[in-house]
Amino acid sequence: MKQFAVIGLGRFGTSLALTLTRMGYDVLAVDTNEEKVNNIMEKVTHAVQVDAMDEQALKALGIRNFDVVIVAIGQDIQTNILVTVMLKDLGVKTVVSKAVTELHGKVLERIGADKVVFPERDMGVRVAQALVSKNIMDQINLSPDYSIIELMAPVEFVGKTLAEGNVRMKHGATVLAIRRGNDVIISPGAKHVVNDGDVLVVVGRNDKLRDLEEK
Amino acid sequence: MKQFAVIGLGRFGTSLALTLTRMGYDVLAVDTNEEKVNNIMEKVTHAVQVDAMDEQALKALGIRNFDVVIVAIGQDIQTNILVTVMLKDLGVKTVVSKAVTELHGKVLERIGADKVVFPERDMGVRVAQALVSKNIMDQINLSPDYSIIELMAPVEFVGKTLAEGNVRMKHGATVLAIRRGNDVIISPGAKHVVNDGDVLVVVGRNDKLRDLEEK
Ligand SMILES: Nc1ncnc2c1ncn2[C@@H]1O[C@H](COP(=O)(O)OP(=O)(O)OP(=O)(O)O)[C@@H](O)[C@H]1O
Ligand SMILES: Nc1ncnc2c1ncn2[C@@H]1O[C@H](COP(=O)(O)OP(=O)(O)OP(=O)(O)O)[C@@H](O)[C@H]1O
Ligand SMILES: [Ca+2]
Ligand SMILES: [Ca+2]
Ligand SMILES: [Ca+2]
Ligand SMILES: [Ca+2]
Repeated sequence: MKQFAVIGLGRFGTSLALTLTRMGYDVLAVDTNEEKVNNIMEKVTHAVQVDAMDEQALKALGIRNFDVVIVAIGQDIQTNILVTVMLKDLGVKTVVSKAVTELHGKVLERIGADKVVFPERDMGVRVAQALVSKNIMDQINLSPDYSIIELMAPVEFVGKTLAEGNVRMKHGATVLAIRRGNDVIISPGAKHVVNDGDVLVVVGRNDKLRDLEEK
Repeated sequence: MKQFAVIGLGRFGTSLALTLTRMGYDVLAVDTNEEKVNNIMEKVTHAVQVDAMDEQALKALGIRNFDVVIVAIGQDIQTNILVTVMLKDLGVKTVVSKAVTELHGKVLERIGADKVVFPERDMGVRVAQALVSKNIMDQINLSPDYSIIELMAPVEFVGKTLAEGNVRMKHGATVLAIRRGNDVIISPGAKHVVNDGDVLVVVGRNDKLRDLEEK
């Protein structure tokens, strides 16, 4: 089982540490702030109040034995960069760092971060997509031209079969699955009737999907 | 065309404002910080240095004429809550607010926020999922039991047809689409051969998908 360490218990770092723990992994949580350490103490494998700039303290924690260390320090870019370099120097195999700007992200890559994440930037994009198309609940961008979207069944399809709704011909889109409450119908046939409240999982060209969203 | 206003130009608010602008929408960006306003000025429809706690200033901006106003003020929970209430009182139809904790989110809902978002919490979950299963590139959670995942074709499937790979029988999973570079093959037949570098879009029960991820 992989062992993770999360350095910096802001909102992102805390959510990451708790999710990994819930998934069954060993998680060490680190922060300079005593209150943050105390709050998470009971919910992760191990939590310590340590300044990640203190190389000796990191060594004492056996940080190089962790498979993945995530640097979730945000505001203080300089600390974030220095801690990332130090972790690579100490021999941590995979270091993931949170970046604040694109430039910061480039610096992190150059100094050896194995993965750079931009939580606020990425959620800004996701929330914008969700606000613009109210019916869309989630999506996977397959390529610049194709996406899979999860959308509330548009009213005009309700009570009709998929063939009658004619999603494929009119919208160049294919219904891959229908979610009905907690049930999932995979590759529904053309005779399948769409119910009110159904959620459709549809694949198609982005321009065609846009028509569907606007129903 | 919908008009959006974004109040608070932190990392999340900035990304949201820029994405909506790129999508072709009118965006008003508001912050108390002059530098942040200047930085975004040229990139959105309109940017102003205003304290959102100042009701008269908001009125003067004609804030109630915007279709959606997003309160992206994070750290200062009290300001975030007061601004949200004020916007609803001023008659803004849809107010979206960024929450820091679950409790904060509940308060926002109770005072009338139409949608509450948790950017850092949600990205914490997403990044955890991505770190745990390296092959998974994106996913849609259909229900507590079913998901659609986008994953790098596991080595043991490369060079084989889907029938030979026997994904459906062995893993209870169905390949909905294959992404090959910028091409997308929808509902590939059983005779389709998986290439190295293909990305598979697969639907199935979460427990079965976990086996696939670990290939
Ligand atoms: N040298 C350090 N060692 C350990 N922890 C640190 C260090 N410097 C900062 N931190 C911690 O990192 C955490 C996250 O920092 P900060 O709040 O600045 O980031 P953020 O990007 O705004 O967070 P989020 O948006 O996820 O809430 C804080 O809890 C802070 O105490
Ligand atoms: N009363 C206000 N009126 C307008 N803007 C404000 C007000 N109070 C705070 N802001 C702005 O909101 C922005 C976001 O605030 P803050 O950085 O505290 O949130 P955050 O959640 O840490 O942001 P991030 O998205 O970067 O994680 C800042 O640019 C700040 O200047
Ligand atoms: Ca995606
Ligand atoms: Ca912050
Ligand atoms: Ca943040
Ligand atoms: Ca999802």
